[in-house]
Amino acid sequence: MTTTGLNKVGEYAFVAEPFHVDFAGRLTLGVLGNHLLNCAGFHAEERGFGMATVNESRYTWVLSRLAIELRALPRQYERFTVRTWVEAVYRLFTDRNFELAAEDGTVIGHARSVWAMISMETRKPADLLALHGGGIEGYVCQRDCPIVKPGRIKLAGGRHVADHRAVYSDIDVNGHVNSVRYIEHVLDLFPLERFRSQRVRRFEIAYVAESYWGDTLSFFVDEKAEGEFDIEIRKNGAEPVCRSRVIFARE
Amino acid sequence: MTTTGLNKVGEYAFVAEPFHVDFAGRLTLGVLGNHLLNCAGFHAEERGFGMATVNESRYTWVLSRLAIELRALPRQYERFTVRTWVEAVYRLFTDRNFELAAEDGTVIGHARSVWAMISMETRKPADLLALHGGGIEGYVCQRDCPIVKPGRIKLAGGRHVADHRAVYSDIDVNGHVNSVRYIEHVLDLFPLERFRSQRVRRFEIAYVAESYWGDTLSFFVDEKAEGEFDIEIRKNGAEPVCRSRVIFARE
Repeated sequence: MTTTGLNKVGEYAFVAEPFHVDFAGRLTLGVLGNHLLNCAGFHAEERGFGMATVNESRYTWVLSRLAIELRALPRQYERFTVRTWVEAVYRLFTDRNFELAAEDGTVIGHARSVWAMISMETRKPADLLALHGGGIEGYVCQRDCPIVKPGRIKLAGGRHVADHRAVYSDIDVNGHVNSVRYIEHVLDLFPLERFRSQRVRRFEIAYVAESYWGDTLSFFVDEKAEGEFDIEIRKNGAEPVCRSRVIFARE
Repeated sequence: MTTTGLNKVGEYAFVAEPFHVDFAGRLTLGVLGNHLLNCAGFHAEERGFGMATVNESRYTWVLSRLAIELRALPRQYERFTVRTWVEAVYRLFTDRNFELAAEDGTVIGHARSVWAMISMETRKPADLLALHGGGIEGYVCQRDCPIVKPGRIKLAGGRHVADHRAVYSDIDVNGHVNSVRYIEHVLDLFPLERFRSQRVRRFEIAYVAESYWGDTLSFFVDEKAEGEFDIEIRKNGAEPVCRSRVIFARE
């Protein structure tokens, strides 16, 4: 991981490790999601509004939505670059975008994320415009991110297709099922066969509530069109935890 | 990741990323396992007997056994170092060891691994002493690795505690459930409570057979003594796939 300095766009270099690619040799979306969230963390921390810094004032960043669109994915052992910048800061949310570039420099994907900051004591949202005397606004950057913003996902019913009891590996340092695991669990609903002839063109996830060790996560799926799925994860038979949309395309 | 050159011991630097630590803020054993196997790959590749190189001759490395002993684990955001070297080369197996050092240089753990090389066509083992004209022997290194070698794990019965159907995220580029996922699945058998007051002091795994997407993995556990567990994973109700031993210690 390297950084190009404190300009508005952070740039971080990676390589697709053997255990981070799927059966077809493509970087998994879970690992990509992990890298995006790490880059968000590096970029924010380097500029004075990262997790460690805001934790000192007893605030924490919460990922609300993530949308990823891909034309291709890095293959095993390929180097790739993630660029990230802040697109907008509102009172309660901030939009952070990402660009994914292949080893040869070709841009192969984009992502959009929406974050809030909450008080670690009251769990109430903080005013981002007041953060560090408005300092975060100084990093807002006009740069093209040619993908649709994460939208509202609403299932019309949905078929109950799987259950998963949250285990040790699912749980992060906050005691919640971690954001990356939900991405993996959603993709794990699909048979391997689908990933053989198709790839994920767009993946979207909205984090609605937290779940904990031992919670039973139930997965409901609504196929909107050929290769287009809306998914809702509910915990313990009732409360929605996440909503996701997955759109496949021919490889 | 950096390398210190082509001496017999490879040295690689990492940082414990936020999504790579457990609820208690310690690097997970699955992630550590992934790093160890990557370091094995880097070290071998840099010296001309790595996966990509042997694949050209239609051979592939197969991990047979892994044992890890830890006094502590890196915490979130901490830097740490993995060192690896070849301890011995036999006709059909080679022993590769590892040392884990914390940010301040303290050695906090060791690991031992046993590898074979097989033909990608016949799946028969290759003669390692003949590999590259005996070149791998030139890297054998006398260096202390003060942990017991991986032993033979044999369950006296065992209680059937869980089942897991192998999903998309479990499968690696060879089409098999990947070595790191088995580590995670084994640790996921234990309640979070155990990891609150205890830590894994020794983890051992023997890879016996391959499993594939859709296979039902059944987990059998035999508690040998307080905090000492032998685990066998069987696929589709019969064939053993992995055997593991987990020894906990008070944190």
